[in-house]
Amino acid sequence: VDYNACQEAQRRLDNLTKPPGSLGVLESIAVQLAGIQGHPRPELGEKVVMVMAADHGVAVEGISAFPQEVTRQMVINFLNHGAAVNVLAQQAGARVVVTDVGITGAALSHPDLHSRRVRPGTRNMAKEAAMTKAEAVAAVEIGIEMVSREIETGAALIATGEMGIGNTTASSAILACCSTAAIEEITGRGTGLNDQVLLKKQAIIKQSLAINQPDTDSPLDILSKVGGLEIAALTGVILGAAAYRTPVVLDGFISTAAALIACKLNEKTKPYLLASHLSQEPGHQIMLKEIGLKPMLHLDLRLGEGTGAVLAFPLIEAAVKIMHDMATFDQAGVSNGH
Amino acid sequence: VDYNACQEAQRRLDNLTKPPGSLGVLESIAVQLAGIQGHPRPELGEKVVMVMAADHGVAVEGISAFPQEVTRQMVINFLNHGAAVNVLAQQAGARVVVTDVGITGAALSHPDLHSRRVRPGTRNMAKEAAMTKAEAVAAVEIGIEMVSREIETGAALIATGEMGIGNTTASSAILACCSTAAIEEITGRGTGLNDQVLLKKQAIIKQSLAINQPDTDSPLDILSKVGGLEIAALTGVILGAAAYRTPVVLDGFISTAAALIACKLNEKTKPYLLASHLSQEPGHQIMLKEIGLKPMLHLDLRLGEGTGAVLAFPLIEAAVKIMHDMATFDQAGVSNGH
Repeated sequence: VDYNACQEAQRRLDNLTKPPGSLGVLESIAVQLAGIQGHPRPELGEKVVMVMAADHGVAVEGISAFPQEVTRQMVINFLNHGAAVNVLAQQAGARVVVTDVGITGAALSHPDLHSRRVRPGTRNMAKEAAMTKAEAVAAVEIGIEMVSREIETGAALIATGEMGIGNTTASSAILACCSTAAIEEITGRGTGLNDQVLLKKQAIIKQSLAINQPDTDSPLDILSKVGGLEIAALTGVILGAAAYRTPVVLDGFISTAAALIACKLNEKTKPYLLASHLSQEPGHQIMLKEIGLKPMLHLDLRLGEGTGAVLAFPLIEAAVKIMHDMATFDQAGVSNGH
Repeated sequence: VDYNACQEAQRRLDNLTKPPGSLGVLESIAVQLAGIQGHPRPELGEKVVMVMAADHGVAVEGISAFPQEVTRQMVINFLNHGAAVNVLAQQAGARVVVTDVGITGAALSHPDLHSRRVRPGTRNMAKEAAMTKAEAVAAVEIGIEMVSREIETGAALIATGEMGIGNTTASSAILACCSTAAIEEITGRGTGLNDQVLLKKQAIIKQSLAINQPDTDSPLDILSKVGGLEIAALTGVILGAAAYRTPVVLDGFISTAAALIACKLNEKTKPYLLASHLSQEPGHQIMLKEIGLKPMLHLDLRLGEGTGAVLAFPLIEAAVKIMHDMATFDQAGVSNGH
C-alpha cells in the first residue's frame, strides 16, 4: 500500500467543498483505494462477484433449514439469472462468476459454470476432518486461479459470494477457533432455524471441535478440519485479489470467515478488504472486529451469495466519484472555515 | 397505506428463491412501497432530491465552524454541480432541485434556482423567536408547493436535503423539545466544532429554549421559535410527499428534525418515510428512535445536502428490482425448506 498516495488523497479530500471528514467512510474508502492503486485519484473498472459453491458433509446432521440439494438447485438458479445475487449484480453493473468447488451428486455442466470440483462435498466434520490439508489447499488454489483470471482480463473490484447448505455451521466453527467467544454467541439461525435446531447446531459445532481438535495457531488446520471447500476457495479469492493489489468487498458471515483465514495466512491481506454489510448472524460482528473492519450497510441480510457485497458497490463507486467530480473550495469560491 | 397490497407483496417475497426474510430491510422496503402504491409489485420512476436552503440568525453567536456566507456560496456550488450532493445524485440518476427559502444578503438569481425567500434568514433564536408562526407556515407551504410540482411532473421517490450554516443548532433545539434527552446528549460538532465551541453551542441552545419557551405540545410553536426556514420547508416537502402517497428518503440530522415536526403535525406521515443513514451527530439516533425508523447506511456522514439520502436510492431500487426480477421456488425448481 502506497502511503504517499493515501496522504495525497486525503489532502485532496480536505480541499473539496465539504467540511473535512464529513463524508466519513466514503473518505476512508477513497484513501484506501488510493493506497491500493498507488494513485491519489483511484479509478474503478469492471466489477465481478466471485460465487464459490460446495456442499458440506455436516448437512446430514440436520443443521440447516433447507435440504442439501438446494446448493445444486441454487447454482442452477444463479446460472439462469434468477437468484437475488443476479438481480442485484445486474443493478450494480457487475458480472457473476460461479465456480463449483465441490457440489455433491453428478457433476454439473453449464457453459457459464466453472467446474473445479475438488471432491463432492466435504466430509462430515462432526465425525472426522472436513477435508485433508491437500484438499483445502487445492480449493484455496482454485480461488486464486479464478480471481487471477478475472483480474487479468479487467476486473478492478471483486466481491465474494457463496452457496453451500450448512456453511454457517462451518463458519461458526472457524470463528470458534479464532475467538474466545462462546459457541452460543457465535452460532446463529442461518437460513432460519427454530430454537430446537439451533441448539442442535451448537452441539454439532462443539462436537466437531472436540473430535477434530483444530490447531488454532494453524489457519490451514482450522480451514481443513472444520471449514468448507467454498470457504477455502473464497480464502483463495481474497489472497489472490490482495496479491494483485485489487480491493475485495466481503459479503456476510461465510465470506468473512474466509477473510479471517486469509488474514491469518497473510497479514498483508487486510488493507485490501472492505466490509459491505452487518449480517443478522450474531457471529458476524465478532468476526469483523477480529479482522478490524466496519460494515457500511445495516440491512439485516442473511442470504449470502454475495448479495450484501454487491449492494455496497455503488458506495465504493461513490467514494471514487467524489474524488474526481467534486469542486474544490478554490474552484467554487467557497470560504474554508479552517 | 394499502394493507392488502402489503400482504400480497410479503407472499410474493416468501415465494422467491431465498430463505423467507433473508433480504431483511430490502424486504421491508418492498412491502412498504407496495402499501404506499397500493400494488404488490411497486414501481419506481424519477428520483428527486429537494434541497432547501436558508440562513440562521443564531449564526452570529459563532456556533458553526463555517461563516454564514457559506450557505450562499454552497447554493451557487449546487447550481454549478460542484457539491457532493450533485456528484452523488448524478451517480444515482437523481435530479437536484434547489430552493432558496431564506438566504441572507442580496437575492440570488439563477435559472435553476427556485427563489422563494420568506425572509433573509431567521432571527437569532438566542434572543427572540426565529420566525413568526406566519413565516414558518409560509416556509412549510413552499415545501409542499415545491414537492407537489415535482411529483405532478413525474417524481416517484423524493429525498430531502438542505444547506444552512447553523442548522444543526436549530435541529438540536427542536429535538430538545421532542425528547427527554439532555442538551449535552443531543448536541454535536456539526461541521466540525472543537470542544470549546461545542460547549458554547450547548449554552446557546439552552438559552434559546429558555428565552422562547416553546410549547412542546405544538409542533408549529417549536418550529417557528427554534427551527429554521429550510427545516420548515423540508417539513412541507415531507407532508406534501405523504399527501401524494410518495415515499420520502430522509437524509441526516436536519432532515430528520423536519420529519419529527411533520410526524407531529400529521401522524399519517410516518408510513411514507425511509431513513437513509445514521449521522455522526449524536442526536440523530435519538431522533430516529423517536419517529421509529432504522437507518440503512452507517457511514459516519455529517455533511447534509441530501448526500446520505441519495446514497440510499440504489438500495430502495434494489428492493423493487427483487420483486420484479427474482425467480420463484417453482420457476427455478428449488426445494422450499418450509
